[in-house]
Amino acid sequence: MTQARYPKFLTAIPQDLVCASDYALYAKQHLPDDIYQYIVGGGGDEITLRRNRSKLDDLLILPRVLQDCTQGGTHTTVLGQHFRSPIMLAPVAFQTLAHPDGELATAEAASLLETGLVVSTLASQTWQDIADKTQSNKWFQLYLQESRDFTSSLIKRAEQAGYTALVVTIDAPLHGIRNRAQRAGFVLPDDVVAVNLADRPPLPRKVFDPSESVVFQGMMSEAPTWQDIEWLQQQTELPIILKGILSPQDALHAKQLGIDGLVVSNHGGRTLDCMPSAIEQLPHIRHAVGDNFPLIMDGGIERGTDVFKAIAQGADLVWVGRPQIYALAVAGALGVAHLLRVLREELEVTMSLAGTPTIADITDEMLIK
Amino acid sequence: MTQARYPKFLTAIPQDLVCASDYALYAKQHLPDDIYQYIVGGGGDEITLRRNRSKLDDLLILPRVLQDCTQGGTHTTVLGQHFRSPIMLAPVAFQTLAHPDGELATAEAASLLETGLVVSTLASQTWQDIADKTQSNKWFQLYLQESRDFTSSLIKRAEQAGYTALVVTIDAPLHGIRNRAQRAGFVLPDDVVAVNLADRPPLPRKVFDPSESVVFQGMMSEAPTWQDIEWLQQQTELPIILKGILSPQDALHAKQLGIDGLVVSNHGGRTLDCMPSAIEQLPHIRHAVGDNFPLIMDGGIERGTDVFKAIAQGADLVWVGRPQIYALAVAGALGVAHLLRVLREELEVTMSLAGTPTIADITDEMLIK
Amino acid sequence: MTQARYPKFLTAIPQDLVCASDYALYAKQHLPDDIYQYIVGGGGDEITLRRNRSKLDDLLILPRVLQDCTQGGTHTTVLGQHFRSPIMLAPVAFQTLAHPDGELATAEAASLLETGLVVSTLASQTWQDIADKTQSNKWFQLYLQESRDFTSSLIKRAEQAGYTALVVTIDAPLHGIRNRAQRAGFVLPDDVVAVNLADRPPLPRKVFDPSESVVFQGMMSEAPTWQDIEWLQQQTELPIILKGILSPQDALHAKQLGIDGLVVSNHGGRTLDCMPSAIEQLPHIRHAVGDNFPLIMDGGIERGTDVFKAIAQGADLVWVGRPQIYALAVAGALGVAHLLRVLREELEVTMSLAGTPTIADITDEMLIK
Amino acid sequence: MTQARYPKFLTAIPQDLVCASDYALYAKQHLPDDIYQYIVGGGGDEITLRRNRSKLDDLLILPRVLQDCTQGGTHTTVLGQHFRSPIMLAPVAFQTLAHPDGELATAEAASLLETGLVVSTLASQTWQDIADKTQSNKWFQLYLQESRDFTSSLIKRAEQAGYTALVVTIDAPLHGIRNRAQRAGFVLPDDVVAVNLADRPPLPRKVFDPSESVVFQGMMSEAPTWQDIEWLQQQTELPIILKGILSPQDALHAKQLGIDGLVVSNHGGRTLDCMPSAIEQLPHIRHAVGDNFPLIMDGGIERGTDVFKAIAQGADLVWVGRPQIYALAVAGALGVAHLLRVLREELEVTMSLAGTPTIADITDEMLIK
Repeated sequence: MTQARYPKFLTAIPQDLVCASDYALYAKQHLPDDIYQYIVGGGGDEITLRRNRSKLDDLLILPRVLQDCTQGGTHTTVLGQHFRSPIMLAPVAFQTLAHPDGELATAEAASLLETGLVVSTLASQTWQDIADKTQSNKWFQLYLQESRDFTSSLIKRAEQAGYTALVVTIDAPLHGIRNRAQRAGFVLPDDVVAVNLADRPPLPRKVFDPSESVVFQGMMSEAPTWQDIEWLQQQTELPIILKGILSPQDALHAKQLGIDGLVVSNHGGRTLDCMPSAIEQLPHIRHAVGDNFPLIMDGGIERGTDVFKAIAQGADLVWVGRPQIYALAVAGALGVAHLLRVLREELEVTMSLAGTPTIADITDEMLIK
Repeated sequence: MTQARYPKFLTAIPQDLVCASDYALYAKQHLPDDIYQYIVGGGGDEITLRRNRSKLDDLLILPRVLQDCTQGGTHTTVLGQHFRSPIMLAPVAFQTLAHPDGELATAEAASLLETGLVVSTLASQTWQDIADKTQSNKWFQLYLQESRDFTSSLIKRAEQAGYTALVVTIDAPLHGIRNRAQRAGFVLPDDVVAVNLADRPPLPRKVFDPSESVVFQGMMSEAPTWQDIEWLQQQTELPIILKGILSPQDALHAKQLGIDGLVVSNHGGRTLDCMPSAIEQLPHIRHAVGDNFPLIMDGGIERGTDVFKAIAQGADLVWVGRPQIYALAVAGALGVAHLLRVLREELEVTMSLAGTPTIADITDEMLIK
Repeated sequence: MTQARYPKFLTAIPQDLVCASDYALYAKQHLPDDIYQYIVGGGGDEITLRRNRSKLDDLLILPRVLQDCTQGGTHTTVLGQHFRSPIMLAPVAFQTLAHPDGELATAEAASLLETGLVVSTLASQTWQDIADKTQSNKWFQLYLQESRDFTSSLIKRAEQAGYTALVVTIDAPLHGIRNRAQRAGFVLPDDVVAVNLADRPPLPRKVFDPSESVVFQGMMSEAPTWQDIEWLQQQTELPIILKGILSPQDALHAKQLGIDGLVVSNHGGRTLDCMPSAIEQLPHIRHAVGDNFPLIMDGGIERGTDVFKAIAQGADLVWVGRPQIYALAVAGALGVAHLLRVLREELEVTMSLAGTPTIADITDEMLIK
Repeated sequence: MTQARYPKFLTAIPQDLVCASDYALYAKQHLPDDIYQYIVGGGGDEITLRRNRSKLDDLLILPRVLQDCTQGGTHTTVLGQHFRSPIMLAPVAFQTLAHPDGELATAEAASLLETGLVVSTLASQTWQDIADKTQSNKWFQLYLQESRDFTSSLIKRAEQAGYTALVVTIDAPLHGIRNRAQRAGFVLPDDVVAVNLADRPPLPRKVFDPSESVVFQGMMSEAPTWQDIEWLQQQTELPIILKGILSPQDALHAKQLGIDGLVVSNHGGRTLDCMPSAIEQLPHIRHAVGDNFPLIMDGGIERGTDVFKAIAQGADLVWVGRPQIYALAVAGALGVAHLLRVLREELEVTMSLAGTPTIADITDEMLIK
């Protein structure tokens, strides 16, 4: 069934597929249009989506010459966990949309390239199966559920499967206005399912009076608040990372609450359009929380130079979102592995040509703004 | 006759018609070219027309996360009148140009979506019929006439029909250079008439000597001045709003004169080209008049995020102009109602994702400029 | 012969020809390609040519409302000469390139619309015939000649023909690199001749040694210097205006020398590419020379709003260059007259909508920069 | 063989080939696509490549009028060597890629136009043959080799062939990510060879353990460091110039080390993408090293106005890279000679129209930034 949806996957990487943005072009050929539009698109007029890229492109790298890089490497340590490189795979829901192997293929590629990954609450493979596929650091992305008991049970399952951090998404209490996907008529196919939520208790049915709003009195009644975060801190020993912070004040509040790290993100431009890009908010947030507080940058990363810029602006790690799905759609685990290899090599070449042999050398003095 | 002009209206909203700008695309198919060009076009090279949009797009929203929005809503009160949302339908002349039902359809949609509307002096349906079609707040847009007696009679009629505010257009003493409409050969069709001005007294015929100008000594001799506004203040108990202010000094003068509110507007870019956009002048005008003075923003609003930005910049209400006519041309009352629903939902989603549950929460701290 | 070159001129103005830039589009159809490219083109990569327009477009007009404009008019006085409007026709060489009537048609249109004009040293009709065709203010544009005696004789002829000011072009000691015209293979047709220079003495033949340059030791040996200007001041009682100043220091020097006025110009972007636009240098030059010193702005004027902006930035008059030639090519004297009428009406409408009834009211407070 | 690759060269310059950028258009027709893409392309997304041009275009020249230029000329002296003009031919590897005559044709053209040239370590003709072809100043571009003995032998050969300066490339320790060339499948043809390195000792074969990187522990182990530069200073009496400096701190360090000059360059945008343009770093580097220290600007030069701007920003000489190869591909020595003539004439015209008769007159006061 799923196989029939995607008859053709590449089994070798063609000569003209050499970087992440090439995968976007190929993916357009490999995916049904509605699914492609769903993946590629963003909220509203996609101003934020484009800005995630353009603000990365605007930053300039000022290299230093004739540095000894022979001891160089991309290794880094965050939350006490060791990473081969600061590049991680972002949590993306429903990966069997792109390839029948879905998250299993992604995890296999992550393992092969020693790349950390984050697995979604809305994975289309079981969290246990995905965890079993990879030797890499694996974190669990959590959507807080209407039922606190059910939320607790999800956390327990993630802990048991070996996930080593909890990433709580807080910037998508509702979907956002994804006009591109709407125009393409995208609906989740019947065979793509949040398999890990099969036992989710049914939501209470709500009746609205005329002066009420489906948005405020409906959808937002399930949205998490700071109180839910405080409750969550009691439920687990795992480090807790909040995903979707753009305001320095929110970042400082989270740190003061004892949160272990933040993902600076606008949800890939998929929720509220007209938010600033992640890369432009990153230095403000680093300034607010000070050094030695884990920050992850998510949004627009497509190049080794992007990784370099994010680190120079204050990130400890960066996440790669859409490109992993493009690569998965084009060539399954092979595609994702190739993508990860390209990105790491681009980062190594960038560090070498910039004269910064280690991640710690990549400071904001390396940028012209 | 009018029916023959527009043989085809949608009776259901297609999947790919999901936002205001989509209506503009559809309207191009539903209108004769000259009428379409007249509606879509602006003055001169349309610099101001484009700027109305681009300056809205340039503003960025900085969301706050994890706020409780369950008590949220778009309700607001201006001039003591309650509005379901700050979105109003702008006064647009001659709506039977777009659809045979004209203003009646617009009023019906406004009523259905509990949306305030402003009816034009140059309506192509009677003010009484339009007023009878809607339960919503309805204001009357006034062009001051050559004859003060006739102007007074118009005001009386508007009062009797139940309009609750007088919006005096002051930025269009003459038409402006609408080159796009000229090139398309637009002329008002014979069957589209300012039916409410049927008894307008004939204008005096004027002869110009060679050193005189048809513009200054001709058209501008009928243009209103501040003295006419002061006269007008004696003619009615209705609140008076001046439409078409861009200068902070003019705004302050109007407030000092006892005017009840202002519409920050460049007439949709249709009169003098190269004026600034409404959104960029709005904060300067708010600064000039202080808090607690009603300001309405008109020009370029197409998105819930635009409404949010205008409010954050100091507006109490916003007007939607061209999109209502596109929607009317595409699907009559159904189209306008759908448009209004989309806009309000977009605003609700924006407020939810920005963490601002009420209109009062939308301050300029929510923007990055 | 010339007639055969241009078989087709419009004898009525079509509906879609409504502004100066429309004439550019039409002219492309009415001119042989090489001549069109020669007229439309500029120096090098045409950065300055485009900037002349874009910097005008960037300026914004901030209107004042409800002003009494019934006594308004575009009249102005410069160098003691009265002008119906601040719009003048710039000197353009060889106008029979565009139309067999050449400068005679332009002069006729200028007379009809009470518009001042400037006639080129390189006119293709005699200065006397052109002067006889017009009642308007007429100035004479002078290229200083290798022979001072011959230069003196040209000035005498211009004085006798009734020209009332001398405009000395100083920004084109050589042609500039007009790549577009080169690529089109433009050469002046045999029948287009500088008829007023028939008795020009032959230039001395020069031999260059290998270390010399055809540019410096050749062409520039005929170029005027400040000393030539001082000599020129002894030759005539006419007011002397220098054309082609962009540097405030040069402007101040000219004023101190007793020069009567300046044309802020980059030669329409036709000589040195990468010069700033005329409109952006204008306020700096006004600042350098102070009030009450005649400044003319030349470069990019296509709209009434452009005229308004130039005056607000410090110009007393503006010149219209290429558009007059486009109009001439399209419809001869009729075209030029129509163009001049459109421009003056656009200016009147701009002044009315901006609330500035007279030229003196157009100050830099009317602009947002 | 090589001849078969390029069957068609122009033997006369067509009318529409009038400037350097025209050669780029023609070259596309004259080269196999993979070679064209290799030459024209840059690193990554070519942000730096485009910026090299756009930042030159952004600078504006403010001319002074009525200056005496009759003694003018483009002559200049750098490192005690006299140059007819500040325009030099940049070192470009493997010129038989573009034309079977390769570097011999370039050298012949340089001699004809009295233009200095720099010959690459990776020339495809022998250094001696190239040197014998030209009377112009000729410098030698050196890539430091793994073996210091071999490096020394290269320097000796360059000295013996008559090269008068050593230009050490320090910004390309590895190739950079040239995606465009990769996509086109470019590989160096078998008959294009670094003929001067025939006796290069084989590189030691390296085995990597899993935690090592081919980039850092592989390629970068051969990359030069400041220590290698200090060693190099002991090996030759020739002046040493470092090529590929963008950081003012690196520039100052080089000067303090006794280096004789610097090339401000980002390697034509071919190595690390997202570096700043050469022209924007130039004034910062001039500021760091002070006056009277030779600076060469390399990157994007295509126009006489570009040369003028670079000198005004602090350069003593400029290099022309890609355009020489385009011209070579289109018309061999004739093409390169024509290009060099065009560039020098453009510079002369620029100097004349700007009122700066000598190179020393071109200061940063001539620019608007």
